[in-house]
Amino acid sequence: METGCGSFALIGGDKRQLFCARSLCDDGYAVSLGGFDTIGQMNNIEITSPFEAALMSEIIILPLPSLNQKGCVPAPFSKEDIVLTDDILTAMKGKKVFCGMKDRLLSVYPQLTANTYDYYDREEFAVCNAVATAEGAIEIAMGSFEGTINGAKCLVCGYGRIGKALCNILRSMGAKLTVSARKPSDLAWIDLMGVRAVRTDELYKESGYDIIFNTIPAHILSCVLLAKIALHAVVIDLASGEGGVDKYAAQRLGITNIHALSLPGKAAPKTAGEIVKNTIYHILEEDDR
Amino acid sequence: METGCGSFALIGGDKRQLFCARSLCDDGYAVSLGGFDTIGQMNNIEITSPFEAALMSEIIILPLPSLNQKGCVPAPFSKEDIVLTDDILTAMKGKKVFCGMKDRLLSVYPQLTANTYDYYDREEFAVCNAVATAEGAIEIAMGSFEGTINGAKCLVCGYGRIGKALCNILRSMGAKLTVSARKPSDLAWIDLMGVRAVRTDELYKESGYDIIFNTIPAHILSCVLLAKIALHAVVIDLASGEGGVDKYAAQRLGITNIHALSLPGKAAPKTAGEIVKNTIYHILEEDDR
Amino acid sequence: METGCGSFALIGGDKRQLFCARSLCDDGYAVSLGGFDTIGQMNNIEITSPFEAALMSEIIILPLPSLNQKGCVPAPFSKEDIVLTDDILTAMKGKKVFCGMKDRLLSVYPQLTANTYDYYDREEFAVCNAVATAEGAIEIAMGSFEGTINGAKCLVCGYGRIGKALCNILRSMGAKLTVSARKPSDLAWIDLMGVRAVRTDELYKESGYDIIFNTIPAHILSCVLLAKIALHAVVIDLASGEGGVDKYAAQRLGITNIHALSLPGKAAPKTAGEIVKNTIYHILEEDDR
Amino acid sequence: METGCGSFALIGGDKRQLFCARSLCDDGYAVSLGGFDTIGQMNNIEITSPFEAALMSEIIILPLPSLNQKGCVPAPFSKEDIVLTDDILTAMKGKKVFCGMKDRLLSVYPQLTANTYDYYDREEFAVCNAVATAEGAIEIAMGSFEGTINGAKCLVCGYGRIGKALCNILRSMGAKLTVSARKPSDLAWIDLMGVRAVRTDELYKESGYDIIFNTIPAHILSCVLLAKIALHAVVIDLASGEGGVDKYAAQRLGITNIHALSLPGKAAPKTAGEIVKNTIYHILEEDDR
Repeated sequence: METGCGSFALIGGDKRQLFCARSLCDDGYAVSLGGFDTIGQMNNIEITSPFEAALMSEIIILPLPSLNQKGCVPAPFSKEDIVLTDDILTAMKGKKVFCGMKDRLLSVYPQLTANTYDYYDREEFAVCNAVATAEGAIEIAMGSFEGTINGAKCLVCGYGRIGKALCNILRSMGAKLTVSARKPSDLAWIDLMGVRAVRTDELYKESGYDIIFNTIPAHILSCVLLAKIALHAVVIDLASGEGGVDKYAAQRLGITNIHALSLPGKAAPKTAGEIVKNTIYHILEEDDR
Repeated sequence: METGCGSFALIGGDKRQLFCARSLCDDGYAVSLGGFDTIGQMNNIEITSPFEAALMSEIIILPLPSLNQKGCVPAPFSKEDIVLTDDILTAMKGKKVFCGMKDRLLSVYPQLTANTYDYYDREEFAVCNAVATAEGAIEIAMGSFEGTINGAKCLVCGYGRIGKALCNILRSMGAKLTVSARKPSDLAWIDLMGVRAVRTDELYKESGYDIIFNTIPAHILSCVLLAKIALHAVVIDLASGEGGVDKYAAQRLGITNIHALSLPGKAAPKTAGEIVKNTIYHILEEDDR
Repeated sequence: METGCGSFALIGGDKRQLFCARSLCDDGYAVSLGGFDTIGQMNNIEITSPFEAALMSEIIILPLPSLNQKGCVPAPFSKEDIVLTDDILTAMKGKKVFCGMKDRLLSVYPQLTANTYDYYDREEFAVCNAVATAEGAIEIAMGSFEGTINGAKCLVCGYGRIGKALCNILRSMGAKLTVSARKPSDLAWIDLMGVRAVRTDELYKESGYDIIFNTIPAHILSCVLLAKIALHAVVIDLASGEGGVDKYAAQRLGITNIHALSLPGKAAPKTAGEIVKNTIYHILEEDDR
Repeated sequence: METGCGSFALIGGDKRQLFCARSLCDDGYAVSLGGFDTIGQMNNIEITSPFEAALMSEIIILPLPSLNQKGCVPAPFSKEDIVLTDDILTAMKGKKVFCGMKDRLLSVYPQLTANTYDYYDREEFAVCNAVATAEGAIEIAMGSFEGTINGAKCLVCGYGRIGKALCNILRSMGAKLTVSARKPSDLAWIDLMGVRAVRTDELYKESGYDIIFNTIPAHILSCVLLAKIALHAVVIDLASGEGGVDKYAAQRLGITNIHALSLPGKAAPKTAGEIVKNTIYHILEEDDR
C-alpha cells in the first residue's frame, strides 16, 4: 500500500481494532474510531461517534463478527453495542466497508448500499490467525503442564492450518511429537518433516501423552478415546463451536480440558489487529488492479 | 541406570524434589521422603521424618540450594525447615549424599562423613536447566507482549547456554531475531544459523525491539542503553543475582522489566525434578566406572 | 501392511523398481522380476521372464511411465523394452496391476482385464517425490555454486510441493532465502516461516541472487527477467516439460542454467523405489476397507 | 571494516585466495596478486610478481598452509611454488602479514621482521569452516548414497564444531539422526534438540546405519566397530590427519569409506575465501582498538 492517502473509520470492536487503528495510523492514514468512547485518547487518532467516523472516512472497518446475535456491532469499549442507524448507513453509502462475516451484516441491513468485503473469508487471514492460535495454544500448554514442552510427549490431532502451525513450533521446541491426519498426503508431509504421523482413525492405539492439542471440529475425543490416550494429559481443544472433546467425559475422568476459542484476539490482539489491516490492504490492492 | 536396586531418600525441597521422587519411583527404586509432612500421600512412596528417610536409604538427595541462609535445609512442604541433627548426620554416614551447592552444606556441617556430590556443579545440569529457563522466559514474553512471538522484533543479549536455547526457540518460532555476543566465534555461530548477530558493545546502535531477553549477569542494560533500545519493549531479565537491567531506570522510562529467577523450578518443576534425577544417574554411573 | 502373504512381480523399469523389489522382499513378500535379464542375481528375488513373473504373482507392478512412446514397457535392464504379449496380458487377467500413467497403458492395451491402479496419480506419491526432487536440486546447486548454501542468496520461484520442500531445507541450511508465490495465503505462510516472500509478478524488482530454483511450469524466467535477476546466478530449473527458463536467453547471457528432470529416480533411486512401494501399500489398504 | 583505504597483496594460494582477493576488491580495497601468473586477468586486480605485490601493499596475505613441506609458499596458479627471497622479505618488513600456520612460516624464515598474524588459529575461522565442511560432507553423502538424506539413518560421531554443524543440517533435512558424544553436557544438548544421543563408548551397540559421518580424530571406527555398525553404510571420514576409520578394514568389509579432507577449499572456495577475509578483518579491528 502506498501511504499518506485514504482515511479509515473503525466502528466497534475490541483491542484488535484498536491495534489495527494504531497500525493504520503508523502507515500514514487518517484514522477515526467510532464506538470507543470509554477510551481516553490516542495519538493522532480521532475518537468520535460511529456516525461521525463513518461520515469523515472513505473506508469503514467493522469487527469480527460484524454483528452480534442482537444485530448490533459489538463495541466492548463503548457503553453499549452499536445499532447501524439510517444515518450511519447513509454515511457509509458508496464507500468500501470491510467486516468479518459479511452475510450476517447484509441479512440484517439489506439496505446497505456500500461495497462490502469480508476479510474473515480470506485464506491468508485464516493462515495468519492459525499461527497466532498455535502460539496461544502453546502458551496455555506451558501454563497448564508442569514440565517443559521440550521433551513432552505431545499429540496434535488434525493437520489443517492450525495443526501445521502447531507442528512447526512444537517440533522445533523439541517436543516428542505425534501428529494425526486422515489424508495419506498429509501423513506423508508429516513424516517427511521427521515427525511421527498417525492416522486419525487409529488414534485409539496411542497412549502416554502429556499434552494433546485438538484442532478437528468433530467429536473425535470421545469418552473411550480420552480414557485410552489422555488419562494423564492436558487437553487443549482448539476446535470451534462445540469443540472436539467430550467435556463431560473429560471431567469424569479427571482430565484437564481447556476449550480455547478466539485465541488470536485474546493472546495477541496486536498481531490480530495487524492481520486485519494486512488482509484489508490485500483486498484493496486486488481491487485496484 | 539399571533399575530395581537401590533406595533413595529426598530430604527437603519443593515441587522439583517431589517430581524427582516420582520419577525415581517410576524407575523402580524404593523412595522415601523426609520433610514433606504437609503432603497427604503418594503412590509407592514413603512419607516419613528426615531421620527415618536418611536411615532407611542408601542414597540421600538434598535440594538446591542444600541449605538456606539459616543453615537449614529448605522444606516448603514441611511446617519448618530442616536442621540436620546429629542423628540425621549419623544416619547419612558413609552414604552417598547429593545436593546443590555442596560447599554450603560442608561449611555448616563439617562433621558430615558422607560421600557428597554436587549436581548443581555439573555442566549437563546447567545445560538442561538453560532450556527450561528459555521456555519459561518465552512463556513470560507471551504473557506480557500483546503480539505473537512470530514476527516480533526480539533481542537476546548474550550467547551462553540460555542465550543459545532462546536463540533456537525464537528463531524457529519466526521471531525477527537479533542476538548479541562478545566473542567473534559466537557471532559466527549466530550468523551461520541465519540469525542477525550484533556485538554486545555495539548494542547502543540498536532500536525498535518488541521483546528483549537479557542473559548477561552484568549491568549491561543501563539507563542510557534502555532509553535507546528498549523504549517500547518488554524486557525479561534472566541474569542471576542483581540482574543485568537498571531496574530504576526501567521504571522511570515506563519500560516493563521482569526479573525472572529460578524459572525451571517455577515454570516446569516436573522437568526440573527429572533433570536432578538424570544428573544424579550420570554421577552414579561415572562413580561406578 | 501385514507381511508374509502376497506375491509381487515387477515387470520392466529402472533402478527404482529394483529398490522397490528389494524393499518388498525385505517386508516378507515373494518377489519376482521380469525384464531384468542383464542383472546377475538378487538375494531371495526370482529373476525371470515378464510372462513367468506375471503368471506366478498376485500383484503386478509396471514402471513410471508404464509405456514408452513405442507402446513398450521401458526395461533398461533388459536387452530390449517389453511388449505386453497376449500371453502376458492373460497372465495379468483379474489381478491387480499397478503402474504410473495408467491411461497410456489402457489406451494401448484396451484388452487388459485387470484391476489397474495408478500410483503416479496419488497425492502422497507427488509429495514424497517433491522432497526427493528438492534434495536432488540442492545437490546440483552444491556442485554448481562455488560457495556454500549457508549464506548464499537463494530464490525459489513457486510455492507448490517442490517449492515448499526446497524452502524448508534451504531455510534450515542458513541460506538467505526469498520465495516467490502468487496466492496471498502462500505469501502469508512463507512470511510466517520467517522467510522473505515476494509476489511472482514482482520478481522483476529482484536482483543479486547466487542460486535460483524454478519450480513454475510456465515461461516465467524470460530473457528480460533473467537479465534483471540472474546475471551472476546458477539457475536450476525443476519445471517439467519445456521448463520455465528461456534456455537460449540464458545461454546468450552466459548464465549457468540446468534443467533437471526426474531427479528422484536419478539422485535417489532407493527412496524413489520405496515411495512406489509405500504408495502401492496405501492403495491396497484403501482397497481392503 | 571501513572501505576505501588500505591495500592488500595475496601471495600464493589456490582458488580460495582468488575469491578472497575478489571480495577484498569488492569492498573497495586495492588488491594485487603475486604467484598467480597462469591466470589471465581479473577486473581491478593487479596480477604481478610476489615481490612487486609485497612491495606495493600494506597488508600481505599468505595461504593456508603458509608453507609446504619444502618451505615454499604453495602457488598452484603459478608454474612453481614461491620461495620467499630476501627481496620479498624486505618488502614485507614492518608490514602486517597474515597466514595460516604462522609457526611454520617463522621457523623457516626467522629473519622475517613483520607483524605476523595467524588466521587459522582463530576460533571463528574454525567455526565458519566447520559449516562449510559439513555442507561439503553432505554433498558427498548425497552423491554416494542411493536414497535421500530425508529418512536416511545417519550417525554423526563426535559433537565438536563439525559435528554440531552436521547435526543442525541433517536434523532439519529430516534424517533419522543419531549423534555420539563423550561429555554428558554434549549428550544433553543433542537430546534437547530432539536428536537421539549415544555415548561414543557405546557405539558398539548401534547398527543399521545408511550414512556415518566421523569427525573424531582418533582411530574410533576400528575393524570390530565397522563390522558392527557400518556394514551397509557409506562412511564419510572428516577427521584430519590419518582419519578415524580403519581404511583397510573398511576395504576388506566392502564398506564405502571416503576420507574427505580440506572440504571448504574444494567444495566451496568462494565461501572459504570470504572466511579468510572476514577473519582478517576481525584481527585488524581488534588490533585497532
